[in-house]
Amino acid sequence: MSILVVGSVALDSIATPFGTVEDVLGGSASYFSTSASFFTDVNLLAVIGEDFPQEHVDFLRSRNINLDGLMRAPGKTFRWRGRYEYDLNEAHTLDTQLNVFETFKPQLPEHYRQAEYVFLANIDPDIQREALSQVAAPELVACDTMNFWIDGKKEALLRTLELVDILIINEAEVRQLAQEPNLVKAAAIVRSYGPRTLVVKRGEYGVLMFGEGSIFSAPAYPLEEVFDPTGAGDTFAGGFFGYLAATRNLSETNLRKAIIFGTIMASFTVEKFSLERLKQISHEDISDRFKRIKLLTDFADLD
Amino acid sequence: MSILVVGSVALDSIATPFGTVEDVLGGSASYFSTSASFFTDVNLLAVIGEDFPQEHVDFLRSRNINLDGLMRAPGKTFRWRGRYEYDLNEAHTLDTQLNVFETFKPQLPEHYRQAEYVFLANIDPDIQREALSQVAAPELVACDTMNFWIDGKKEALLRTLELVDILIINEAEVRQLAQEPNLVKAAAIVRSYGPRTLVVKRGEYGVLMFGEGSIFSAPAYPLEEVFDPTGAGDTFAGGFFGYLAATRNLSETNLRKAIIFGTIMASFTVEKFSLERLKQISHEDISDRFKRIKLLTDFADLD
Repeated sequence: MSILVVGSVALDSIATPFGTVEDVLGGSASYFSTSASFFTDVNLLAVIGEDFPQEHVDFLRSRNINLDGLMRAPGKTFRWRGRYEYDLNEAHTLDTQLNVFETFKPQLPEHYRQAEYVFLANIDPDIQREALSQVAAPELVACDTMNFWIDGKKEALLRTLELVDILIINEAEVRQLAQEPNLVKAAAIVRSYGPRTLVVKRGEYGVLMFGEGSIFSAPAYPLEEVFDPTGAGDTFAGGFFGYLAATRNLSETNLRKAIIFGTIMASFTVEKFSLERLKQISHEDISDRFKRIKLLTDFADLD
Repeated sequence: MSILVVGSVALDSIATPFGTVEDVLGGSASYFSTSASFFTDVNLLAVIGEDFPQEHVDFLRSRNINLDGLMRAPGKTFRWRGRYEYDLNEAHTLDTQLNVFETFKPQLPEHYRQAEYVFLANIDPDIQREALSQVAAPELVACDTMNFWIDGKKEALLRTLELVDILIINEAEVRQLAQEPNLVKAAAIVRSYGPRTLVVKRGEYGVLMFGEGSIFSAPAYPLEEVFDPTGAGDTFAGGFFGYLAATRNLSETNLRKAIIFGTIMASFTVEKFSLERLKQISHEDISDRFKRIKLLTDFADLD
């Protein structure tokens, strides 16, 4: 079972208290698809500029990610510049250059239109809907968004949400979207907009998943070295959705396991800049952290 | 097995977005001992002023809390005035009047000196040590503290920590005490000061417990109505330590269960002002939330 992801492929410049990098591989679709590729096949739809380095294309292809939908357009690649202080939960955006994304119109290659599992990464909600409309019979649709679209294009976003099964956003965005400070109440409001499952990302505090009459609380994996949180949320979504696509099982238990796999993938991403850490890990590293998270949360069956 | 708690009994005035109250029962020892009283016998040591209402004394006694160590001194009771905005994680202190606490010298009644489980609530670390020195043979010592003492009396605090088995403090206080932003590293530093177990309170994000080679992550209980977070930390400590005293079992699993019982007790406290909610609940309410927290965190055994 393969996934279709629509999102950004970007070049990031990042400063953290631990170092700086210029023009490294970034973007929601890069993180998502690399993470998901540990579990299933991925078809990527995004646009890059003439300046996008071939080595990054080669890397994504080496992960068996289908790049037929990676369009090269005249102009420069989407760029993001950000900075983190010691509080790594908060990204300070210094500069965003949309470049080739300014005029991006998604055009799905013919064989992408048969996709059953679709992830709409954080882009303009109108583009999300435009891409989704080209998929013949989507079985499961997940989506991310951000404060920028909640502020600026709320109506368009609400139209997208009506078509979405699983929404994956940050805690502050849940409160903002629902205009309700209590998270439990806000989750119920957001679920009434369409998504039957709401996954709330809370950075170093883990994840809450709200379903019909159920809440699941997952911790973050406690790390001694958090180097750069960029891409953690997209990596999480990739592990989560990749595991769901690989298992094709939407039971509560399997959704919860998918959350844990997403958490694990994100825990690797933040250990180095860009996708450097994801390039190094094996399936054994992933299962090892799965066991550790079990030990981290269990309070009944240890003795 | 009974507990000795040394701390404050106070009159609080609190404003939250949901209401205001004046001069209600508060103080670390009040919350701690009421919470612990659901699990075990409690001996309370604190000082109150001439103005302290008899109804609060009667309430504490109705919970079978031993009040031989509740000293009435000339002057006024310790008072705290605070305010919360919609972000209920942060208390804004408007006024603190130490009153009778300014000259408090702990004097343990003779039968308190045989205590085996001792909880030193958040007071001057010199007073904590003075009280502990009067206990003949303490078997398990837990303690709380705050930024005020970390800033102002760090050396005295470090001398207290050498005598402590379990330290229960907020996340920001761990970082401040260790002078290290990474929580996992900071926990190791704080444990090197004495406490073999460090319990880190994270408000609505739950609790992390650090032991020798182990970390336990517990969620907070998700609530639709959080009314007033005052006393949540002390209520947590009371449930945690009370359960440990009742079971006299310091295995990793039992420590973890104690964390969950602490979490549950705190989840009741925040639902109303002061100790109002704790006055209403039964043991059945507590076991019901225990089952719910199990369901909230389980990702392996649901199907």
